[in-house]
Amino acid sequence: MLKILFINPVGTDAFDEPILKTINDVKRADVEVKVVHLSKGPIHLEYHYYEHLNMEETLKWVKWAENEGYNAVIIGCFYDPGLREAREIVSIPVIGVAEATMHVAATLGHKFSIIVGRRKWIPKMESNVYLYGLGSKLASFRILNFTVPMMLREPEKLKEAVISEARKAVEEDGAEVIVLGCTGESGFMKEIIEKIGVPVLDPVVVSWKYAEMLADLYQKVKLTHCKMFGYESPPREEGYLPKWEHR
Amino acid sequence: MLKILFINPVGTDAFDEPILKTINDVKRADVEVKVVHLSKGPIHLEYHYYEHLNMEETLKWVKWAENEGYNAVIIGCFYDPGLREAREIVSIPVIGVAEATMHVAATLGHKFSIIVGRRKWIPKMESNVYLYGLGSKLASFRILNFTVPMMLREPEKLKEAVISEARKAVEEDGAEVIVLGCTGESGFMKEIIEKIGVPVLDPVVVSWKYAEMLADLYQKVKLTHCKMFGYESPPREEGYLPKWEHR
Repeated sequence: MLKILFINPVGTDAFDEPILKTINDVKRADVEVKVVHLSKGPIHLEYHYYEHLNMEETLKWVKWAENEGYNAVIIGCFYDPGLREAREIVSIPVIGVAEATMHVAATLGHKFSIIVGRRKWIPKMESNVYLYGLGSKLASFRILNFTVPMMLREPEKLKEAVISEARKAVEEDGAEVIVLGCTGESGFMKEIIEKIGVPVLDPVVVSWKYAEMLADLYQKVKLTHCKMFGYESPPREEGYLPKWEHR
Repeated sequence: MLKILFINPVGTDAFDEPILKTINDVKRADVEVKVVHLSKGPIHLEYHYYEHLNMEETLKWVKWAENEGYNAVIIGCFYDPGLREAREIVSIPVIGVAEATMHVAATLGHKFSIIVGRRKWIPKMESNVYLYGLGSKLASFRILNFTVPMMLREPEKLKEAVISEARKAVEEDGAEVIVLGCTGESGFMKEIIEKIGVPVLDPVVVSWKYAEMLADLYQKVKLTHCKMFGYESPPREEGYLPKWEHR
């Protein structure tokens, strides 16, 4: 039995149940899922400063997962907050929702468009596209004009807006693949694929399946992210690793 | 039960058994594997012209897989021969060994190096790296000076050469991840990961796990490559689709 932890790096339980439902619909029977959220901090990560505020408890959960024998961990936000930091402190695969989803998108069609809630999100997300090496695969960003709290409040309007912007991305921007750029846009992937006619990637679904794949590869052949160079762990003797790191 | 077909696009059964063994070591219990080879044609694909010669029977197997209810198909050569053509004629996920392995590599470390048999292979494979959008993630190519037939004849010497070139890629070229650039370099991933200390990706293992992931996503949420635009199927009425396509 493999175990994977999905962390909602926000101080609210509002996403736990819908995300658990989405994962349960697609997960392998032999993989156990746990979804957690933070005990405090901002309830969304639309601001970089909020990422900073939520980073410590997120990383604590990442380390907790490794200590508890989890086979992989997912950081559940399309900004991929704390991805590098997390990989420095654990050996189990750490999956960035955006990184995993974009790479899968790149194998399903010529170019992808990312549907974001607000224009505010684009600069960091576009930077991540280039950071992940996928600049040439990006057709466009499309904006819903929904904050994360609005997404939670108005799921039907959200779905309509996603369908409308996804269509425009296909028809006007040359997208062959649609990436939903927020875990708040999750839960209606199959329905939207049928409506749009091109692949539509729910980042919760795709990052979950990617995590299953990496968890399996880690268990079976010890494959995980490189622990030398970029993700080298801070030396214990420098004394900056917190107590929870030592458990 | 999911079923995945692994096609060795070469006119020899020499790879079937070792590849089946490699897959059996890592595959999910609930996924069925079948490995096939071509009835005729070149026994390796070191020449582009050989790809051309082997293309038709390869595509026939791809279509056969869809007709027989397979959930995904892998084209087992690191040149990814016929990937676009195959995606045009079927809806089931078609996995290119190189495409899948390189994208996974990109999520495991800063840059990857590809270990090829001969310098002859580099131009097409480097072109593929850029085609897949991953030019900025490429540290280097490293050359073993092994033809494919030599790989089959001298597996121990091959392993030594891979370890030696992989080390140089890490130490001299800035690679954090090693990609074995031929299905002939398969079967010793776990051993090499322990020796080199960075992730080493066996293209058979990784493309198999990637295929499991996509097979699952296709079955559960109908996700597959985009069938519009780049992979649009030729119209039946033009009459160029062969008889085996119609089964």
